[in-house]
Amino acid sequence: MKIAIAQLNPTIGDINNNAQKILDAAQKAVKENVRLLLTPELSLCGYPPRDLLLYPNFIDSLTLQLQELAQKLPPELAVLVGTVSPNKQATIKGEKPLFNSVALLENGEPKQVFHKWLLPTYDVFDEHRYFEPGKELNFFELEINSNSEKTLKIGVTICEDLWNDEKFWQKRSYQQNPLEELVKIDIDLVVNLSASPYHLHKPKLRTQMLQSSSCHHQVPIIYVNQIGGNDDLIFDGNSFVVNEKGNIVLQANSFREDFKIFHFDSKQRKISLKPINYLPLVEEEELFSALVLGLKDYAQKCRFTKVVLGLSGGIDSALVAAIAAEAMGEKNVLGVLMPSPYSSDHSIKDAQNLVKNLGINHHILPIGDIMETYDHVLNPLFSDTEFGVAEENLQARIRGNLLMSLANKFGYLLLSTGNKSEMAVGYCTLYGDMNGGLAVIADVPKTRVFSLCHWLNRQEEIIPNNILIKPPSAELKPNQMDQDSLPPYEILDAILNLNINHHQSFHEICHAGFDAHIVKKVLKLVTRAEFKRKQSPLVLKVTDKAFGTGWRMPISRGDK
Amino acid sequence: MKIAIAQLNPTIGDINNNAQKILDAAQKAVKENVRLLLTPELSLCGYPPRDLLLYPNFIDSLTLQLQELAQKLPPELAVLVGTVSPNKQATIKGEKPLFNSVALLENGEPKQVFHKWLLPTYDVFDEHRYFEPGKELNFFELEINSNSEKTLKIGVTICEDLWNDEKFWQKRSYQQNPLEELVKIDIDLVVNLSASPYHLHKPKLRTQMLQSSSCHHQVPIIYVNQIGGNDDLIFDGNSFVVNEKGNIVLQANSFREDFKIFHFDSKQRKISLKPINYLPLVEEEELFSALVLGLKDYAQKCRFTKVVLGLSGGIDSALVAAIAAEAMGEKNVLGVLMPSPYSSDHSIKDAQNLVKNLGINHHILPIGDIMETYDHVLNPLFSDTEFGVAEENLQARIRGNLLMSLANKFGYLLLSTGNKSEMAVGYCTLYGDMNGGLAVIADVPKTRVFSLCHWLNRQEEIIPNNILIKPPSAELKPNQMDQDSLPPYEILDAILNLNINHHQSFHEICHAGFDAHIVKKVLKLVTRAEFKRKQSPLVLKVTDKAFGTGWRMPISRGDK
Repeated sequence: MKIAIAQLNPTIGDINNNAQKILDAAQKAVKENVRLLLTPELSLCGYPPRDLLLYPNFIDSLTLQLQELAQKLPPELAVLVGTVSPNKQATIKGEKPLFNSVALLENGEPKQVFHKWLLPTYDVFDEHRYFEPGKELNFFELEINSNSEKTLKIGVTICEDLWNDEKFWQKRSYQQNPLEELVKIDIDLVVNLSASPYHLHKPKLRTQMLQSSSCHHQVPIIYVNQIGGNDDLIFDGNSFVVNEKGNIVLQANSFREDFKIFHFDSKQRKISLKPINYLPLVEEEELFSALVLGLKDYAQKCRFTKVVLGLSGGIDSALVAAIAAEAMGEKNVLGVLMPSPYSSDHSIKDAQNLVKNLGINHHILPIGDIMETYDHVLNPLFSDTEFGVAEENLQARIRGNLLMSLANKFGYLLLSTGNKSEMAVGYCTLYGDMNGGLAVIADVPKTRVFSLCHWLNRQEEIIPNNILIKPPSAELKPNQMDQDSLPPYEILDAILNLNINHHQSFHEICHAGFDAHIVKKVLKLVTRAEFKRKQSPLVLKVTDKAFGTGWRMPISRGDK
Repeated sequence: MKIAIAQLNPTIGDINNNAQKILDAAQKAVKENVRLLLTPELSLCGYPPRDLLLYPNFIDSLTLQLQELAQKLPPELAVLVGTVSPNKQATIKGEKPLFNSVALLENGEPKQVFHKWLLPTYDVFDEHRYFEPGKELNFFELEINSNSEKTLKIGVTICEDLWNDEKFWQKRSYQQNPLEELVKIDIDLVVNLSASPYHLHKPKLRTQMLQSSSCHHQVPIIYVNQIGGNDDLIFDGNSFVVNEKGNIVLQANSFREDFKIFHFDSKQRKISLKPINYLPLVEEEELFSALVLGLKDYAQKCRFTKVVLGLSGGIDSALVAAIAAEAMGEKNVLGVLMPSPYSSDHSIKDAQNLVKNLGINHHILPIGDIMETYDHVLNPLFSDTEFGVAEENLQARIRGNLLMSLANKFGYLLLSTGNKSEMAVGYCTLYGDMNGGLAVIADVPKTRVFSLCHWLNRQEEIIPNNILIKPPSAELKPNQMDQDSLPPYEILDAILNLNINHHQSFHEICHAGFDAHIVKKVLKLVTRAEFKRKQSPLVLKVTDKAFGTGWRMPISRGDK
């Protein structure tokens, strides 16, 4: 018996086109005599639909589209489709109004519907906001072929349902464990329909977790993940199959749509595939691919074909330019050099070399004259004051204005180029260099920006070498260097990682061996920069804690 | 026996100062021979603490401070304090790590701890993100005085615990109803410690709901609410007491801290107060007071003493200036007039009259020269194009830069002045007039902006009459009027209300009697403006659905 995995890239809310993608996969599957086709979690509406779920009409459209899709699908093919279904007893029982569901479509109709049990409500996940947990055991009996009376018993799980393996995590995260319940009724295999957002090393973590689960329960697991960028979240795909011994026997693409078919030996009730030796991507390739996909899909799903960014001659904008060239095609990328009287000669030259290496377009718009007119207007009020943050920020904001003028005039998507370390400590200008529709590398710490650029240069110089070796500077006043007022980036990033990703306090971080004065200063900067992060563009999430939908901090606080 | 209500204004995370506020109230209470003192939900850390709860050190500090506070409190006084407590069984049972709790402090120690049952996870609430629901019945026996063996049986509920009155709402929102369970064990009275965020008409709704509950269950209820602004949320206070017949017998202040003492007749087991005829504020006064408190507390809790805003001569900035003058004192408000060649004479005159009426400070900074320098720099790229959105936005962004320069230079909090109707349809400029630390009226629809200004002028002219009668215009090109490209505001606001606050779709809104072309256009504008709202300042929430923490919409969508 053949089973197929459709690793799809849906667009949030684009129900018709998402249904068409499922239909296309089904037609491909049926040509190959596939019996069962699997699609990702919420494949009909895309994940995460967020507050679109609060609109009754949106739920009705999903219900209608599911019916229509069932009728269009080849009747002999069983298809698992992710969708949202109404909880009709909600207001009587005092429950949430919806379920996060999977529908089994066969013979022209939804034959069975399964509801997700474990609803993630942490970090970027808000599933308790919308959904009631499922309570019934999720499985179905699949006739192995239409003239046979033999059936397979297939357990259905939805994403988080498999993330409560007490043995693997050494703790329980939910009271229930759907897999344990399914194993008790002697199922032949388990499918998992997922929309599991990417962060660095997560593909490996998922594989290890499901290897542990399948091995422990001696059951094969078919894991189907969404791919594609949806706003701040990137889904890496990386669907795979593990056999009952915990061996990986099939692996789908990373960061691309994919379609895989494999045999299930219905007599022996085993997957007819040999273990493979799957090598995950190296860290930098994984991260770069994620960022490229995140930008590409955000642009495409918002209908942008061209992007613009400021090129300072520094490493951050150089990396974003390289990501943009890969994501959009170099001819669709415009870099703008906006030198001021404080810009060094090498900045302009370095940026021009970058433009040449990448083959992108560029303009040069000097900002000196504009700075002078502002000075002239502000002079009556500022004349008795010293040059300071106001004057520094003004330069960044003039550049931000010019970039937005180009974006507005020619329909570019403006990319902001700040890294995570800057965003953490507030070394960035609101309404200046923070401007943009997407903050491409704002979840990439500065030290990782360096390692990504070195990796990009592994075969030939893409990022000009001078950009890699010169000391980072905002160039907003003469001889300004980042390290004048910040600790070295290795130390800064280590402190930030403990505080932001590991929720450590001042005392814990000092105890880990960092200087108390530095830690105190850094944590104070982090707290005080919250108001800037509140207004930042979407940040592509690539670590386990990004400054995005999963970061919910108060701004007015007593401990500043 | 005397009971006291401390209607407090805590600052999020400011544990020491919040504890001091509780201690001050306790000392006041004990002087009046009060036996039981009530404080709001999470009175020790302030509500909502959001992701501060993810930091173990924060929870430890709360636990420590609670112990210390218990020791400092007068031993003969029983005090209910809102705090967060760790769920020690969490990783074994697969539960959330914390409880939203109330501690009963007496005789120098926490004597009992009660956990909230019903955890709101909708709109601005994320309690399932952090908390495990309580399961045990929450009540305590209070000795009426220290040498008596008579006790009162007091039921403890925390905010949402009382928001599941099936009779009142005509539906169940949660499976459990804590009040029903408490009534079964024959309690003498119920206390409710709340942090219930304000929206228009909510004070009245709360009163009606608890009148219904107390009357139905024949039990008196003491409702204690937090007051104060915490970021986007405003808490109105309005604590009150209802007797067992559903009569209001005591009412605390709106929008101010308050301290109330009353008698509970321990023999008759009744509240010794006569029903009062409480008149709520008129709509406009309620709304204006809320906005003033929201701004005042945001500024104060972020340590700003002065605010700056742009004055266009239009009604929105006029209203924000009036709110600011009330919240900060007129001498701490700076209005900046930034005329362009497209500004009408009356705009400048109207703004100057406003400045005079309010007694605030002002500067005039014409932007014509700066516009020209930008034009000069952009001319090589723009020369073949027509005047359009890029040029319009540039003016708004020049003004935004000037305002931020003043804010940065002199330490002002910049206020953005856009209303909800603009924010909904995107008639506002990102990095321009949207600039600011706080969007004071971005949850106030334009029609309500008018009614607030008329109300302000009820005794004397505060908002110059010409501002009220002239047709709204952004004045970004010659003879531009809002109504050239938008339906009249009465119609626009009605459509927006159905779509945003009532989650109605295109078909439903048309069915309500609106023109299909207009509805289509408006809904398209709403969807397309999502990227602007993503980057907006905090919006003070004053309706049941604001563009803030309770609005979580995808940006890249298929249905634009």
